[in-house]
Amino acid sequence: MDAQTLYDGILAGNRRAVARGLTWIDEGGVRGKDLAHRLFAHAGKARVIGITGAPGVGKSTLVNALAINLRRRQNTVGILAVDPSSPFSGGAILGDRIRMQESVDDQGVYMRSLASRGHVGGLSRAAFGAITLLDAAGFGTILVETVGAGQAEVEIMRYAQTVMVVLAPGLGDDIQAIKAGILEIGNVFIVNKSDREGADMTVRSLRGLLSLTPESGEWSPPIIKTEADRSVGIDRVVDSIEQHQSYLRQHNLLNDLRYRQAENVLEQSLDDVRKEVEMLSRRESLWKDTVEEILRGKDPSLYARKLFANWLNATPRGE
Amino acid sequence: MDAQTLYDGILAGNRRAVARGLTWIDEGGVRGKDLAHRLFAHAGKARVIGITGAPGVGKSTLVNALAINLRRRQNTVGILAVDPSSPFSGGAILGDRIRMQESVDDQGVYMRSLASRGHVGGLSRAAFGAITLLDAAGFGTILVETVGAGQAEVEIMRYAQTVMVVLAPGLGDDIQAIKAGILEIGNVFIVNKSDREGADMTVRSLRGLLSLTPESGEWSPPIIKTEADRSVGIDRVVDSIEQHQSYLRQHNLLNDLRYRQAENVLEQSLDDVRKEVEMLSRRESLWKDTVEEILRGKDPSLYARKLFANWLNATPRGE
Repeated sequence: MDAQTLYDGILAGNRRAVARGLTWIDEGGVRGKDLAHRLFAHAGKARVIGITGAPGVGKSTLVNALAINLRRRQNTVGILAVDPSSPFSGGAILGDRIRMQESVDDQGVYMRSLASRGHVGGLSRAAFGAITLLDAAGFGTILVETVGAGQAEVEIMRYAQTVMVVLAPGLGDDIQAIKAGILEIGNVFIVNKSDREGADMTVRSLRGLLSLTPESGEWSPPIIKTEADRSVGIDRVVDSIEQHQSYLRQHNLLNDLRYRQAENVLEQSLDDVRKEVEMLSRRESLWKDTVEEILRGKDPSLYARKLFANWLNATPRGE
Repeated sequence: MDAQTLYDGILAGNRRAVARGLTWIDEGGVRGKDLAHRLFAHAGKARVIGITGAPGVGKSTLVNALAINLRRRQNTVGILAVDPSSPFSGGAILGDRIRMQESVDDQGVYMRSLASRGHVGGLSRAAFGAITLLDAAGFGTILVETVGAGQAEVEIMRYAQTVMVVLAPGLGDDIQAIKAGILEIGNVFIVNKSDREGADMTVRSLRGLLSLTPESGEWSPPIIKTEADRSVGIDRVVDSIEQHQSYLRQHNLLNDLRYRQAENVLEQSLDDVRKEVEMLSRRESLWKDTVEEILRGKDPSLYARKLFANWLNATPRGE
């Protein structure tokens, strides 16, 4: 499939094209990056919901339940599962996934895992590209699930409009272990497995911590108890998502986010130019000559400039 | 002090200029980066020795003892202590440092810590700049000490010609905990605190592990027992450094390293151009206009190219 056919197919919502496009983006190569950048202008219509939390709190089950609920409300749903910590998904996760495929096996849902390539920046960019693609393909709601609270997860959550942080009672993820960074990015907090002992304690501790977090705007993050495996509380979660989305629209915050994403695309493109200049220069004797000039004491910044100028002249492009 | 005076002062080995220059480089700003790149052509004469190992194995004491030994052998010694893991050095480290200053308080030794800025790439680049500066200032041997075995330390050790890995018996840094990456970069292994119980066991385990590591060339890394606080074994360590340096010279490997460092300088300069283009573009309405074009669906790579072309035209430079 060539790039143009793929591009057209994705915009038409063709599932095979969506799958192929996500593979390109997941590879992390030039063709995936170009595709994501081209699709960007067609994105910006979807609701992008981030779901994060420690392993074992039941995020996959929750995402499953949310997808079913959203489908009942006539939403189309794209799901991205991103796990920066492990290159391979374990058996439990795989099991969850199979269950999800069974329960929501219709054309209105698309589910995909993003591989971890051991490169935080790369994974974050791939996640942004994949969100852009599902958005451009017409999925109305995109659920982005990440594991844990590391740098990569927080970075990926920046692409979401509504961030949900999931906890569970007594699961090693003591309230104390929650990093301040995660509290600050959460718009909706969920205490899942709320039939377990200690759920009310978890809610109280969380409320206490949130009261210490500086408020951002007028939105005050709700704390919702769920039992995702029995679909208890899921309606309230989806209602909260909708309320938060209304809040964002009313305060013009969705436009701000979209502007920042376009800036992100531009920054990525500037870095792509740098990489391309380096790659093309390395192919020629120019690279070796330049390195030798530097060894001889020439100003490297001057020679870096030359490589950029050389690239501009060597690759004329129309507009 | 202006940049030219500083530059001249460093090349003349003036200690005040050296101190100021290292501060510029440690700041991580443009003036420090420019200084390091200008000095690069004057570097390449020093022996650069990396010393790494877990906290508590006695690296500082060892560096202290090495510095004294090297001074006796008429070497001038520059010492860089780099700790990526903690932004502030603790009391113990500070105590060691004071001891070091007392024992080797002469003009032939210069000691400096590099601050951790929580940014691996930045610290690694600062370390490379600081090594370059001390080298250009005429220090014959540069000891670069890093803590631990993370990504940053391994990256910094790439700038060293001879890498020494320091262990101690039973210090929580079980042999098993040593990462393969560290074993592979070590040219000389030191079991310090060798009067302690378990020292021979540590040596044996280490020998076993090294026999499993693929050999690189004809150099077979020695394992040396030391008691750095009583200067036991230090002569053998310095002899090993000199043997490894002879090995590098005989196999023309020092030139290879120097070439790779010049490549590193060029790569850094290319990335500096990218940063400069982004920074200058952000100052103008050009940035906002470009972002809005991207929101309107224009190809971001085309606009990235325009920003580079614009920068080249706006900042003409002679050669």
